[in-house]
Amino acid sequence: MSAPKKQNMLIAQSGGPSMVINQSLVGAVIEAKKQAQIGKIFGSLHGIKGILEEDLIDLRKESASSLEAVAATPSSGLGTVRQKPTAEDCTRIFEILRDHNVGYFFYIGGNDSCETVHIINQEAIKAKHPIHCFHIPKTIDNDLRSNDHTPGFGSAGRFVAQALQGVNLDNRALPGVHISVIMGRHAGFLTAAAALGRVYEDDGPHLIYLPERPFSMPRFIKDVKAVYKKYGRCLIAVSEGIADSRGQAIAAKFSKEVDSHGNVQLSGTGALGDLLANEIKARTTISRVRSDTFGYLQRSFMGCVSPVDAKEARAVGSVAVKTACQGVKSGSIAIKRKPGKAYKVNFVRVPLKAVARDAREMPAKYINKAGNDVTQSFIDYAAPIVGKLPKPGRLKGVKVKR
Amino acid sequence: MSAPKKQNMLIAQSGGPSMVINQSLVGAVIEAKKQAQIGKIFGSLHGIKGILEEDLIDLRKESASSLEAVAATPSSGLGTVRQKPTAEDCTRIFEILRDHNVGYFFYIGGNDSCETVHIINQEAIKAKHPIHCFHIPKTIDNDLRSNDHTPGFGSAGRFVAQALQGVNLDNRALPGVHISVIMGRHAGFLTAAAALGRVYEDDGPHLIYLPERPFSMPRFIKDVKAVYKKYGRCLIAVSEGIADSRGQAIAAKFSKEVDSHGNVQLSGTGALGDLLANEIKARTTISRVRSDTFGYLQRSFMGCVSPVDAKEARAVGSVAVKTACQGVKSGSIAIKRKPGKAYKVNFVRVPLKAVARDAREMPAKYINKAGNDVTQSFIDYAAPIVGKLPKPGRLKGVKVKR
Repeated sequence: MSAPKKQNMLIAQSGGPSMVINQSLVGAVIEAKKQAQIGKIFGSLHGIKGILEEDLIDLRKESASSLEAVAATPSSGLGTVRQKPTAEDCTRIFEILRDHNVGYFFYIGGNDSCETVHIINQEAIKAKHPIHCFHIPKTIDNDLRSNDHTPGFGSAGRFVAQALQGVNLDNRALPGVHISVIMGRHAGFLTAAAALGRVYEDDGPHLIYLPERPFSMPRFIKDVKAVYKKYGRCLIAVSEGIADSRGQAIAAKFSKEVDSHGNVQLSGTGALGDLLANEIKARTTISRVRSDTFGYLQRSFMGCVSPVDAKEARAVGSVAVKTACQGVKSGSIAIKRKPGKAYKVNFVRVPLKAVARDAREMPAKYINKAGNDVTQSFIDYAAPIVGKLPKPGRLKGVKVKR
Repeated sequence: MSAPKKQNMLIAQSGGPSMVINQSLVGAVIEAKKQAQIGKIFGSLHGIKGILEEDLIDLRKESASSLEAVAATPSSGLGTVRQKPTAEDCTRIFEILRDHNVGYFFYIGGNDSCETVHIINQEAIKAKHPIHCFHIPKTIDNDLRSNDHTPGFGSAGRFVAQALQGVNLDNRALPGVHISVIMGRHAGFLTAAAALGRVYEDDGPHLIYLPERPFSMPRFIKDVKAVYKKYGRCLIAVSEGIADSRGQAIAAKFSKEVDSHGNVQLSGTGALGDLLANEIKARTTISRVRSDTFGYLQRSFMGCVSPVDAKEARAVGSVAVKTACQGVKSGSIAIKRKPGKAYKVNFVRVPLKAVARDAREMPAKYINKAGNDVTQSFIDYAAPIVGKLPKPGRLKGVKVKR
């Protein structure tokens, strides 16, 4: 058997950025440099948009120190896009790839991005255009099928946990009700990470609402009242995607709202938090009710990375290139956890269709019976991914006799 | 002259929490332990509320390691309150202080908290109740008079700068308009800190709007269009307190809004950001417009402290106790910057009335002529307080020939 012929490689990033998506990019590039069968290393700017517009950069021209600096920087260094390729797009993509002698295609992203790779791979087979098509996993939502967890979740979860630690301390100093609205339309993993920073018995979040369980306003108000009675305060973490039992998003109730210009307001950055805060004010005697919507901070904050997440994100990039160079034609690199007490993972090639399109939700065992908190099983699962969190100090507080 | 007689000390925290307010508490307690004339060290829970309700703890019962852990933890460890004492309250306060033989009173907070100390001090003089009354400065708004800057600002500014670095990277990867709404009703310092993380020529925030300059919607839209034309994206940092030329808060325009229950909505967490985003969508052809309101995260996030800020916060606590023990009857400890290139500060006792009640705004030299950005003079001023920021990496991006 002769050595495989030298071909060029193209890599791109797609979907929402994460704090460690560039680790995967750099992991792939560094591995590619070691592989004799890989010639040029192209980066496409803004995902497949860059291929379609032939907007490519030469990643061999990047210095090792520049690559390391980019790896440590949040958000897609190559730019990103949300675009599903049509059959026509694929034809154009193959033309460009052929022009640049690209035999290896790597795409970093979530389930939609994997769907893109899957489409390109199937069209390539149909068109008899032989390229290696690989998906490299990324998503803060942690909702990729076939994976124990996903690169990007650990760092976003770390931000959410540290934010909740702070909000909890703030709320303890100046008691009231506080609502944190966290990303996650269908999967509650990131919202659930809010629980990871709890240290003391009375630490919040005291209530956690996830898209996996139908949200009931009367039950919510009852929960809040009970916690407030017990602690004199109440911290709530809620997924942006919570919906009622008929599947209608709670945030959508804001669609009836009209702003000062008479425009119907479909949604707003604080809409869900404001709605819940107003309901509490209207239905209880609690007056100090606040909400914060974490927004983009949770996926791109500079300086809050889980070391385990960074390491694994680099590994999936590297393993994807290695696997392709071993002759495997297509696939996604999944993270599997090894059984046992110590935290250890394997990186396994799975078929594209095992990750593409459909996402996964949180397993039932991670959600408590009442549907308003996570279980210890979730804490055990997520803690090693998010990494060791800072431990807030607290005064012993020996009371002085009156 | 005989040695001063031994008296007890009481310390409390007031107003909005900060990330380093416990450094000041611990600085004061550690210094007090060194002073022979100080007997017991009481902490009052939730500011003067704890005195009025005689809810005190014994701070000599806290271990050195517990104190250090608390110092490194954001948000008021003793709890906080927003309460201005009446003459009646003062009478009650003096009773409690007399019962507990308190001769030294320290109160950590902003201008309103200093006003509280000022009132107590004046009432104490009237009542011939001799106590040492000291204010220890704290505020993320950086708006205390007589100070070069204020403990708490450096760390909150650091959070804001790192958040903007991340949002800028996110926005560069997926271009559009992004608005960050930052705390500050009357002083723009914290919003201005958004500029500190800029590294590359095209880095945002590209536009910064502060409460110190009247906000004009037509000029705002013109600014956004110009930046968007130049960079294909636009990052905006805006103070929650921006107002029009008649002083009407822009956020107040939302007071006409009615929610789905027919309630008039006075304000919401995302109200100002949503309003500005909607104006941009309505008056330009830009479709991708997002906003984030930083909320409590900027004052209590766990794990984002400026080392200089922490050090200075500890020092003002310690200097306050030292000054009182030297026989000075009252005052606030102000931070003054020494002239010269290298960053150095002095801690100086100033009269309570020089800090109490009225706050300060940003000096004109820190705001550009157009009123939509900060000047280099502000960067030079604020950079050492916020501390060295992470430097985002960027690909050189050598284009591939088509």
